Amino acid sequence: MSKVFASIVTIGDELLIGQVVDTNSAWIAQELNAIGIWVRQRTSVGDVAADIKHALSEAAAQSSVVLITGGLGPTADDITKPTLCEYFGGRLVVDEGALKNVKDIFARLNRPLIERNLKQAEVPDVCTVIPNKRGTAPGMWFEKDGVVYVSMPGVPHEMKGMVTDYVLPRLQQQRSLPAVLHRTLLTAGVGESFLADLIQPWEEQLPPAIKLAYLPNYGMVRLRLTATGADAAGTQAILNEQFEALKQLVAPHLVTDRDEPLEKAVGRWLQQHGRSLGTAESCTGGYISHLITSHAGSSAHFKGSVVSYDNQVKTDLLGVSADTLAASGAVSEAVVTAMLEGACRQLGVDYAIAVSGIMGPDGGNDEKPVGTVWIAAGRPGHLQTQRMHFRFDRRRNIELTATYALYLLLQVLKADEARA
Amino acid sequence: MSKVFASIVTIGDELLIGQVVDTNSAWIAQELNAIGIWVRQRTSVGDVAADIKHALSEAAAQSSVVLITGGLGPTADDITKPTLCEYFGGRLVVDEGALKNVKDIFARLNRPLIERNLKQAEVPDVCTVIPNKRGTAPGMWFEKDGVVYVSMPGVPHEMKGMVTDYVLPRLQQQRSLPAVLHRTLLTAGVGESFLADLIQPWEEQLPPAIKLAYLPNYGMVRLRLTATGADAAGTQAILNEQFEALKQLVAPHLVTDRDEPLEKAVGRWLQQHGRSLGTAESCTGGYISHLITSHAGSSAHFKGSVVSYDNQVKTDLLGVSADTLAASGAVSEAVVTAMLEGACRQLGVDYAIAVSGIMGPDGGNDEKPVGTVWIAAGRPGHLQTQRMHFRFDRRRNIELTATYALYLLLQVLKADEARA
Repeated sequence: MSKVFASIVTIGDELLIGQVVDTNSAWIAQELNAIGIWVRQRTSVGDVAADIKHALSEAAAQSSVVLITGGLGPTADDITKPTLCEYFGGRLVVDEGALKNVKDIFARLNRPLIERNLKQAEVPDVCTVIPNKRGTAPGMWFEKDGVVYVSMPGVPHEMKGMVTDYVLPRLQQQRSLPAVLHRTLLTAGVGESFLADLIQPWEEQLPPAIKLAYLPNYGMVRLRLTATGADAAGTQAILNEQFEALKQLVAPHLVTDRDEPLEKAVGRWLQQHGRSLGTAESCTGGYISHLITSHAGSSAHFKGSVVSYDNQVKTDLLGVSADTLAASGAVSEAVVTAMLEGACRQLGVDYAIAVSGIMGPDGGNDEKPVGTVWIAAGRPGHLQTQRMHFRFDRRRNIELTATYALYLLLQVLKADEARA
Repeated sequence: MSKVFASIVTIGDELLIGQVVDTNSAWIAQELNAIGIWVRQRTSVGDVAADIKHALSEAAAQSSVVLITGGLGPTADDITKPTLCEYFGGRLVVDEGALKNVKDIFARLNRPLIERNLKQAEVPDVCTVIPNKRGTAPGMWFEKDGVVYVSMPGVPHEMKGMVTDYVLPRLQQQRSLPAVLHRTLLTAGVGESFLADLIQPWEEQLPPAIKLAYLPNYGMVRLRLTATGADAAGTQAILNEQFEALKQLVAPHLVTDRDEPLEKAVGRWLQQHGRSLGTAESCTGGYISHLITSHAGSSAHFKGSVVSYDNQVKTDLLGVSADTLAASGAVSEAVVTAMLEGACRQLGVDYAIAVSGIMGPDGGNDEKPVGTVWIAAGRPGHLQTQRMHFRFDRRRNIELTATYALYLLLQVLKADEARA
């Protein structure tokens, strides 16, 4: 079984001036990877016919599957369709299915249908049309010299629908694909180099079918093992064996042995132990609560949050005394401790996270410079506090605070588990 | 003055399997654009020497500036440095400045320094070293056949420091660059095609130095004008004139005439009028509060939020009566109205946003399917409510709810302004 390579080509001036972050490529790459197709290259070009054609030739020279997104809208700057039509030597014709889809969508939205929209139903006569259940622009499947080219809209949820419902199943049908399996664990408290030294002897004995990657982020390091093989069950067995050995080696630094964000590891623990959580957030402004509730099922263990951006809210809703605020300042161990206790009481939860800090760019002073954060995590009677000092921009300071707060909570939860 | 083109090459297997979204490219593109350099192409390749070299040749064939990120870490999968060394025909030597930087960082972190880390101070003897003030891996500046190649770490804040402090100033010094200016406005309530028809006569008379782009997102459409010219003041004048004409044309649908997110437009209004805001969030779980507080200076007008994920919290902290909850259900006009009133009272704010809905994938029923959301925005005595039905995944449903809630609030604020 030979490896099947894919290239992803995303089209749009907005990608080249940085107004839009290309999230489509990462999503497509994950989906292709999961069915055993290797992404060799990702390219973004502007709405320029010559650049689009060049990118297609380049992509086809390197891979037998080329997935293309963007440039299929109804406006003048969208030139992907005529460019593809020329590239594959076809002419534009109306597709009846696509036309009906456009008409149905406008009828449902109760918006006037204009010439420009009807044009969206035109496709090159040398492609197979991929229905768009979520929008007006149809997808297009071309084949030429053994290479498949798929053109899809840049709107993420429209593209995702086509990939899931049509592109992946058809690729799986056409090609014989290997199993590509990943397992990932997350460590904290040690650097990438330290881990590399720690696991070097193990890494050197890894079979060639298994690849290790270090993914450092937010002061934590994710280790990912990728295994490839013709036979899924056998590949999984080899991967599991190596993964267990790796887990043993990094055990003292292990946060979770799944490819999941920290808040999901916290959520699983709470679920398993029938405990509830709330947050009292000052400097993170609701970000921790947002992280937790972005996962389906979080309502089973998460009850809510008080975002006490203003000190009066800390007093009124969390019961932090004005004296404590005056004596210690809002960014202090005393205040986050009182916030945590207030959150548990007011939200009626078993555990809470409380944070207060100065995220910048302004608001710091000599004693408490920008980046100073106090974190409390746990429950009244068993809580831990931590003072951090981050040196980054506002956004990253907020994200780091959330990460460290969730990690601190996880340590308290595990200590509670060990005691029980 | 001829156009200066750049290509961005991002390196790392993690980009090709989709474990990491490439945010570096968008940021770099913005920065280059702001100094008058056009990004022609963005490419991501894996940690594979042949693919890296091929991407470099391709990039250099299209542009005279090639910015490279990633693959400079201390572990075995990081091969960018030796690959560049070979590509440019140099040999690795220790750079004393980079060595001192590595030692200082490990001393400050109080972590043991190992051989692997010292290797990070090695650089090809054919490059100029770019100091890394935020990490251990130095950047490298190569020049060959009139093309500049800059290699930087993939860690975003390390890369950003180098671009800002070193790369942009040096490129500006070396090249004669044109002014590239953007102005952007945001519309709501009408589709891309409708706008395109509305402004077609104006669009057709645009001078060639000005380009228009449609950027639809979350049911709103951003229109961006880009002007290029040798002379900054003259270019700005032409751009402003066309932008004002565009503004007049879309006036009934205009949300903001700045390139800013909605929450920032809301924040500016509150600031100007000396009013305060809070949120009461159920289904968005703190996301609206997070959006608002992600901007510096928000503490001047934003006081806080109650995330009432659990109904008990709606009652205890927002004063929503158990009767209302029982009679209308948590996702209802009556409940979001009561939440809004409770938020204004409890948080002591002038205006509030309240949302309650079913974000999915579970929790819907026939009467209130997944995606049903009630939004209230305004102040007691002058509030508007809206029922929405979103059809997407959980994440997008949350984001859409936040967008529509902020937009509803902005409409109430403008109505209040018109009355005053």
